[in-house]
Amino acid sequence: MSEIITSMSNSQVKNLASLQARGRARSQQGLFVAEGIKMYREAPKERLAGVYVSERFLEKYGSGIFEEKGIEPVILSDRVFSSVSDTKTPQGILCLIRQFSYTLPQLLSENPLILILENLQDPGNLGTILRTGEGAGVTGILLSEGCVDIYNPKVIRSTMGSIYRMPFCYTENLPDSLDWLKKRGVTLCAAHLGGDRAYDLQDYTGSCAFLIGNESKGLSDRTAALADVLVNIPMYGQVESLNASVAAAVLMYEASRQRRRKA
Amino acid sequence: MSEIITSMSNSQVKNLASLQARGRARSQQGLFVAEGIKMYREAPKERLAGVYVSERFLEKYGSGIFEEKGIEPVILSDRVFSSVSDTKTPQGILCLIRQFSYTLPQLLSENPLILILENLQDPGNLGTILRTGEGAGVTGILLSEGCVDIYNPKVIRSTMGSIYRMPFCYTENLPDSLDWLKKRGVTLCAAHLGGDRAYDLQDYTGSCAFLIGNESKGLSDRTAALADVLVNIPMYGQVESLNASVAAAVLMYEASRQRRRKA
Repeated sequence: MSEIITSMSNSQVKNLASLQARGRARSQQGLFVAEGIKMYREAPKERLAGVYVSERFLEKYGSGIFEEKGIEPVILSDRVFSSVSDTKTPQGILCLIRQFSYTLPQLLSENPLILILENLQDPGNLGTILRTGEGAGVTGILLSEGCVDIYNPKVIRSTMGSIYRMPFCYTENLPDSLDWLKKRGVTLCAAHLGGDRAYDLQDYTGSCAFLIGNESKGLSDRTAALADVLVNIPMYGQVESLNASVAAAVLMYEASRQRRRKA
Repeated sequence: MSEIITSMSNSQVKNLASLQARGRARSQQGLFVAEGIKMYREAPKERLAGVYVSERFLEKYGSGIFEEKGIEPVILSDRVFSSVSDTKTPQGILCLIRQFSYTLPQLLSENPLILILENLQDPGNLGTILRTGEGAGVTGILLSEGCVDIYNPKVIRSTMGSIYRMPFCYTENLPDSLDWLKKRGVTLCAAHLGGDRAYDLQDYTGSCAFLIGNESKGLSDRTAALADVLVNIPMYGQVESLNASVAAAVLMYEASRQRRRKA
């Protein structure tokens, strides 16, 4: 095993801190940081660019868990590890992972169920949507340029590993991408407070996509106008809207339910 | 209007900070803090025990919005307001609200749809569950003693006002409360990874309750054993579990969907 890094001014340590904090550093290096033992275990071997552990982690788990991936971890003193961790109580392991590069056609499968996010801002919401999406059988996620960076550490953490498995891509031109999907027979269903149809009265067993808007503003008028159908989620009481990740979950699991029933 | 409080050592200011930070202070005084203009607007007049605003808020909104509630706000300097706010970018208004005191029988309505939470720990999850629950038509929420304090400022904020309208109570003896509900004809449906029935194959149109467990441990075996049926939410891919507020949302909206279809 290598020596223990005890200095905050070590170049690797400085680079880790930069990758945690800055989207630009992540995109320039084509890397992102994934923390925790679950994120290490589920990391695809071929995407693993480095592993960092704290002294305490190594004492507790030994080096056996590194053999399965064939990688030698860099050891940081507990204090240095804490300084580069994005969590309050770090587990003591973080990985550098090579970024993904899916294209729009790769979001399509035989019978696609796509999620399209416009200007989603909250990292926790985005991560939870990836996790729920994988569970519901979503085939891919399309994000407008104005969405939060999917490689933000808070997004990665909330995905609970789904970042490794869910195809996604950003588009600089959302209307063009929507048009491209429509031409390939994908029905665009927009979640909209003014939707004239209850979401559960729409059929999602064919190729379709859900459009979900910004947490406070919802979908832009321009994007909503490109949808094939506007659906609403009925709400009782005085609730004005649902949390974005909850609304997405209700829609995705309704599609999942219909598809299981039909299968 | 009263004078402006500019000192952090003012007794009212110290008490606000204490109510924000400590559940014990909240329960001793029978109060909780609700921040933001939406939480002020939706606050029931008869529960409003005090309103605090920042100088900047008063300049921006004037004093007109206080007439509707017939209450005179206490004015804090912007710096003092920031020090007692639980948010990074405070809107500049917070209210003291008298705590609620529902009993278990008050969670029952004509055709109850109840949510039962065991040892739920994350404040954001609990708040989101209240908000989604109101939207789905849930009639009341029962919490085990081990759940996070519902008056925690992060819970209050995530409820987006549903705290004012959703009946809830804590129980010191969950098994007894479950027994009490069962004797009144409420079917207990536990969300359980080992459930033998897909959640959407169960009928929720009659009196029923969903049991949701802790974020990492799920339901305790003792509580799961008291359920009438264990339901699972089918998951594709390698997803091991859903976020607790997402799982609760999927279940509550399936019940809501069935009830709307039947109505």
